[in-house]
Amino acid sequence: MSTPIPPSLQIIPVPGIPEINPGDDLSNLIANGVTQACGLLEGDVLVVSQKVVSKAEGRLVTVDPDDPLAHKPLVLDEARRVLRRRGDLIITETKHGYVCANSGIDRSNVAPDIAALLPEDSDRSARRIRDAIKGQLGVSVAVIVADTFGRPWRRGLTDIALGCAGIKPILDLRGTDDAVGRELHVTEVCIVDELAGAAELVRGKSTGVAVAVIRGVDPAWFGSGSVVEDVVRHPSEDLFR
Amino acid sequence: MSTPIPPSLQIIPVPGIPEINPGDDLSNLIANGVTQACGLLEGDVLVVSQKVVSKAEGRLVTVDPDDPLAHKPLVLDEARRVLRRRGDLIITETKHGYVCANSGIDRSNVAPDIAALLPEDSDRSARRIRDAIKGQLGVSVAVIVADTFGRPWRRGLTDIALGCAGIKPILDLRGTDDAVGRELHVTEVCIVDELAGAAELVRGKSTGVAVAVIRGVDPAWFGSGSVVEDVVRHPSEDLFR
Repeated sequence: MSTPIPPSLQIIPVPGIPEINPGDDLSNLIANGVTQACGLLEGDVLVVSQKVVSKAEGRLVTVDPDDPLAHKPLVLDEARRVLRRRGDLIITETKHGYVCANSGIDRSNVAPDIAALLPEDSDRSARRIRDAIKGQLGVSVAVIVADTFGRPWRRGLTDIALGCAGIKPILDLRGTDDAVGRELHVTEVCIVDELAGAAELVRGKSTGVAVAVIRGVDPAWFGSGSVVEDVVRHPSEDLFR
Repeated sequence: MSTPIPPSLQIIPVPGIPEINPGDDLSNLIANGVTQACGLLEGDVLVVSQKVVSKAEGRLVTVDPDDPLAHKPLVLDEARRVLRRRGDLIITETKHGYVCANSGIDRSNVAPDIAALLPEDSDRSARRIRDAIKGQLGVSVAVIVADTFGRPWRRGLTDIALGCAGIKPILDLRGTDDAVGRELHVTEVCIVDELAGAAELVRGKSTGVAVAVIRGVDPAWFGSGSVVEDVVRHPSEDLFR
């Protein structure tokens, strides 16, 4: 019993979103940028860089521009606990539950005297953007707030989802049949992380493209859910902390 | 100093690849399937499921179909060491250096009396497919052999690259300027993992779609490299093992 062949996906970069400052109406700027780039269709997934969300929400702290380690005390402020340290590298579990370097604080794509913190609640940020897009353009989309994280065991970074709205973060394929009819026992795919990574492929790091649209995803993926509640693994279930 | 806006990416599922048996000419079957689905263009990325590679290469072991744990002794045979155990779950470092559950052995999408091992050398498998596609269709593509792995700290699985050919696995953005002109210090993006995850979004788990084509990637990404050499992190550099 196979399900139908899925259609192609398209991943579209959205340029033209200006430099964001605290208090800017990010959703409005995204709506305008997307309208110029490709429009929005019911069922599109909008992937938004954490950095512009943090800027719009004023999650910025002034630091000494001449001290490359000036943001390190903030790392501990934003952490629930420190998991590992090696030299200047600090791996923490953040207040939200993410495990990442430097509590997700970084100083790229901001002014030299600024450090950007993660949004307070990226799921809420995603819901706000989703609601505002619905209000302004009349279209229901899913929204993912994405950031670039390292991971153990493998070199190189990938983009993952910090928050989401309007989409099921994890697709539960348990109990569906695989291609030869055997029941799949443990296949829960984290589609929001795969979508965030896919968007990174067109956003790049240096292009100032803070938003991408992913078009053509399975309508069955839409629904409700939260990255922090559904994706972040509770420490008691985790073997590597 | 921004780089130009990247173009859209397209992720195209390739149906029509039949059930694979040991000794089958997988590259020929992929070439035929892709030709029917969308053709191949110079610079396309072909993402191929590990399972069909393992089947074609005969990496199959007969196990007791009535014993759901019959493949567990194989897990230890394929491991360099065991990192964690909890109940039936064994997390190992495989002979290749991957860290994953059950040494990557699984019993989905195979007959009930079969367990599929990972390919012996997935980078070599990718090179063979790339060379055969070039020979048969005259087109240079990148090839990624992808599998579905769990990860610590986050629930849900994502597809990652086991091997690759014709593409730089990690895009080194160190030393390029970010959007506000600050030098990026540590941004090495693992594009082969993001491409593998993107392909999973159209391949699904239950559809028998073992191959996807990703079209429109930056030509600068093409080159040489190996997942095992470039992505797999050496245990001495790893903080979580």
